Amino acid sequence: MPEETTESSRPTLEAVAARAGVSRATVSRVVNGGAGVRQPLVDRVREAVEELGYVPNQAARSLVTRRQGAVAVIIAEPEFRIFSDPFFEQQVRGISRELTARDTQLVLLWVEGPGDHGRIARYLDGGHVDGALAFSLHSDDRLPALIARSRVPAVFGGRPAASGPAVPYVDCDNRGGARDAVRHLVSLGRERIAHLAGPRDQTSALDRIAGYHDVLVDADPELLCQGDFTRESGARAMAELLDRRPDVDAVFASNDLMAAGALRTLRERGVRVPEDIAVVGFDDMESVVRETDPALTTVRQDIEGMGRLMVRLLMRLLDGAADAATASVITETRLVRRASA
Amino acid sequence: MPEETTESSRPTLEAVAARAGVSRATVSRVVNGGAGVRQPLVDRVREAVEELGYVPNQAARSLVTRRQGAVAVIIAEPEFRIFSDPFFEQQVRGISRELTARDTQLVLLWVEGPGDHGRIARYLDGGHVDGALAFSLHSDDRLPALIARSRVPAVFGGRPAASGPAVPYVDCDNRGGARDAVRHLVSLGRERIAHLAGPRDQTSALDRIAGYHDVLVDADPELLCQGDFTRESGARAMAELLDRRPDVDAVFASNDLMAAGALRTLRERGVRVPEDIAVVGFDDMESVVRETDPALTTVRQDIEGMGRLMVRLLMRLLDGAADAATASVITETRLVRRASA
Repeated sequence: MPEETTESSRPTLEAVAARAGVSRATVSRVVNGGAGVRQPLVDRVREAVEELGYVPNQAARSLVTRRQGAVAVIIAEPEFRIFSDPFFEQQVRGISRELTARDTQLVLLWVEGPGDHGRIARYLDGGHVDGALAFSLHSDDRLPALIARSRVPAVFGGRPAASGPAVPYVDCDNRGGARDAVRHLVSLGRERIAHLAGPRDQTSALDRIAGYHDVLVDADPELLCQGDFTRESGARAMAELLDRRPDVDAVFASNDLMAAGALRTLRERGVRVPEDIAVVGFDDMESVVRETDPALTTVRQDIEGMGRLMVRLLMRLLDGAADAATASVITETRLVRRASA
Repeated sequence: MPEETTESSRPTLEAVAARAGVSRATVSRVVNGGAGVRQPLVDRVREAVEELGYVPNQAARSLVTRRQGAVAVIIAEPEFRIFSDPFFEQQVRGISRELTARDTQLVLLWVEGPGDHGRIARYLDGGHVDGALAFSLHSDDRLPALIARSRVPAVFGGRPAASGPAVPYVDCDNRGGARDAVRHLVSLGRERIAHLAGPRDQTSALDRIAGYHDVLVDADPELLCQGDFTRESGARAMAELLDRRPDVDAVFASNDLMAAGALRTLRERGVRVPEDIAVVGFDDMESVVRETDPALTTVRQDIEGMGRLMVRLLMRLLDGAADAATASVITETRLVRRASA
């Protein structure tokens, strides 16, 4: 009678080899990435692995590959923001797909507060992951320094503040994108162009302010308003701006959520968009732009694609095919013209 | 000149001891949980740890505690559902707070599809976590068997299907809660009480169907409608029910999202709630019930509390203070009466 696979007896490499009709060495090569094995054999082995529920021995696998097969994604935001901000979902989606394609396990960690830093550093020190991807960093954040000390190779999403250690990152051209947005408003003949700025402890917001000033060197300081990347802050900043400078004829918001908040205020005040005030956002975040009325003109950054790039850059660092000091990637942005400007 | 802490030189145990004015042994005890150390000394050491940015050596720590200080949370749903279903956010919030209170790192993993199972099993086999918490399981899910084989202690959120291995779980009294909901509708004098059922591959939905039949032993099969726990399925099932049985006078929906969908259909059809049809949900999910009109009568389960209980049960298993075969916890539910019934 053939032996049944029970909970306590795992299927062996030999069983997979017998089922697939290949050698043990072939099974081993497929399980460890499949390099040098012809595709039909790879497929047969994978079918046998799936049918038998075979799980390779991780300890043996690590000896061969010197890898854990796992990468940490560290988000420097509390749990409630991770689950409510579509930016994280899009970026994590890109990371997840790219890691899955490399059969690498994504483990997600987040930071509720500074009290979590020591524990995250210990986790990284424990050798549980081959690398780390970290994002949503603020200028006073100790996380980049902790990660640098842990010696786990890491790639950051968004340029960390200059005060921290030099680390490889993936970011979009925030400053260039902001210039495109403001130049577009200038080309429409707008003369009093305001900027609803994002939080000053994030480099993306600072770079977009710099791009605004690149084009409008003598911008009236009264036209620069402060927000914090939330919809509510955009609505409030727009209301204050209208009270202070009712002659404003265009607004560049530092992200789409703030632009959506500004549009809500303008609708409540009976201001016509774009006739009275033209509005441009930043991100082209699908879940936000599909609901704005009028449709939002914005600066597109490929958020999911940037997540994928973070993984590829990390893998190149792990393979020694890239140098951390020079590996950072800046992606292009693109103005997407819709009805609001 | 005193030595500066640079990126490459970590602060030592000695430095922490000197700063706190205590012995190295005391620092070591505090770092490993603080057992037997007086609170004022614990506080002084923790302050020194924070000031110096000291990170204990994980390898040495594991030797003492035989623990990694990390627990995996595994959600058997694709990433887009994790980020859009408030149930996960509430349960993960409870888990996160309880783990943080025990200085244990939460690592979140999810399952996009069956192709991810082998990789997750390898990760668990790798010894990276002390235990696992798994939830949103479906009856055909291989995950409980994979986790059982990995020998990582695990607690499940929601009772796994009977076909799988016996594993400890935390669940609410789904059947008793459903009985309370239906009895309440009976007590209001309702005579044609329908049930909008959840997906038949989840034990929570099956138990709520059973509770409905406990009270209404001879329920007309036409009054049992199928949904899948989404808002859209509740709206659609309600529409079909009204077409088939316009004489229905009460609805018990298997969760709040389906109840909210049913309320939308009833409003669109001009049916008065509760005058014409009374509606009861299940969950008392804050983000759903605060927006329903009329306010939703529902069966409350403490979702965040169940997350905390999962952690406590896992820790008892790890400490050998509980037996996996008998450790499962069933929490009580409570009918919350509002305007809809």
